Amino acid sequence: MKIEVLRIGTRLVRDDRVTTHVTLVSRAFGASKIYMYDANPEIKETIEKVNKMWGSDFKVEIIENWKDVIKSKKKDLFKIVHLTMYGENINDVQDQVRGEEKILIVVGAEKVPREAYDMADYNIAIGNQPHSEISALAILMDRILQGQHLQKKYSGGEREIIPTKKGKNVIDKTDN
Amino acid sequence: MKIEVLRIGTRLVRDDRVTTHVTLVSRAFGASKIYMYDANPEIKETIEKVNKMWGSDFKVEIIENWKDVIKSKKKDLFKIVHLTMYGENINDVQDQVRGEEKILIVVGAEKVPREAYDMADYNIAIGNQPHSEISALAILMDRILQGQHLQKKYSGGEREIIPTKKGKNVIDKTDN
Repeated sequence: MKIEVLRIGTRLVRDDRVTTHVTLVSRAFGASKIYMYDANPEIKETIEKVNKMWGSDFKVEIIENWKDVIKSKKKDLFKIVHLTMYGENINDVQDQVRGEEKILIVVGAEKVPREAYDMADYNIAIGNQPHSEISALAILMDRILQGQHLQKKYSGGEREIIPTKKGKNVIDKTDN
Repeated sequence: MKIEVLRIGTRLVRDDRVTTHVTLVSRAFGASKIYMYDANPEIKETIEKVNKMWGSDFKVEIIENWKDVIKSKKKDLFKIVHLTMYGENINDVQDQVRGEEKILIVVGAEKVPREAYDMADYNIAIGNQPHSEISALAILMDRILQGQHLQKKYSGGEREIIPTKKGKNVIDKTDN
C-alpha cells in the first residue's frame, strides 16, 4: 500500500517539536512522504540527516495550500483518511482501509477546518478520548500494516540497530 | 492488567508539549497513573480538566527520584518495561508482556541513563527506527490491550463523543 501524510492546522510553528515527531512517525511506520505548510524549514534538514544515518528516502514537501494537495491526490485515486477524535472507531473500519491501494492520511493540529471532514473518504478516531496526533498516526499505520513495517530494513543508512535485551548494539556500516 | 507509566530523561521542561502528549496517551490507552519529575506543574491541572470533561480518574504524580519509583514498583511485583529503539522488537515479545499482571512502562526523553536499561525486565523497541516516545508508548499499550481500550467508556465525564462518519457528535451530559 502507498501511504502519504498531510499535516494541517494552525500554529504549526509553535508546535514545531510535535510536527517533527509526526514526520518521524510517518517515516518509521511506512509512509513515503509528508506534506506540510507553515512549518519550520529546518525540519527538512532534520529528516535528511535521519535518512542519511538510518536509511530510506522519505520525503518532506513544504506546500502552499493543503486543499490543493487533497484535490490532486483524489484525482490520483488516493483515498483521504482524516484522523479525528470525532470519527468512526478504528476498530470498526481498519479492515476496509486495509483494502485500499493508496491513502493520504490527514493529520490535524488544533482547530481543523470543517472542509477536512467533508473532503475525507474516512474520518477515523483512534478512540474518542483526547490524546495526540502523533499517537493517532502511529496507531493507524500500525493497524493497517499489521506490524510488518517494524521488521523492515531501511536501505542506504550508515547505521543499523541489532535488537537486544540490554544496552545498545549498533552496526556502523561506514566502517571498512 | 494494571499499567502505570514513568517519564524520565533530561530537558523535560523544554519538552513540555511532548510530556503533555505522553500523559494524554497514557490516560487514553489504558494506564491509571503517570510519574514524572522536572516537569511543568501545570500538567496536573491540564489532566484534571481532561478528566473532568471526558471522564476517568487518571493520576499524575510529581516525583523526586525515578530510581526509587522503579525499586518500589519492583517490590510491588510490577514488571519494568523500558521503551528504547535499541531493545527487542515488540513483535517478538508482545505475547509475553501480555501475560504480565502489572507493568510500569518507562518512557525516556533524550539521554536515558544506562541504569534504565539495567533495571528493566524488558527493553522493548517499537521498531529500530527513530520516531517518538509518544508513538512508542501508544503502540506498546495498543498491542498489549489489543484495541479493547479504544472502545472503553470513561465514567464521570461531562461530555461523550458518539463516533460518526462526518463532523462531530458530542453529548453534553451536564444538560438536564
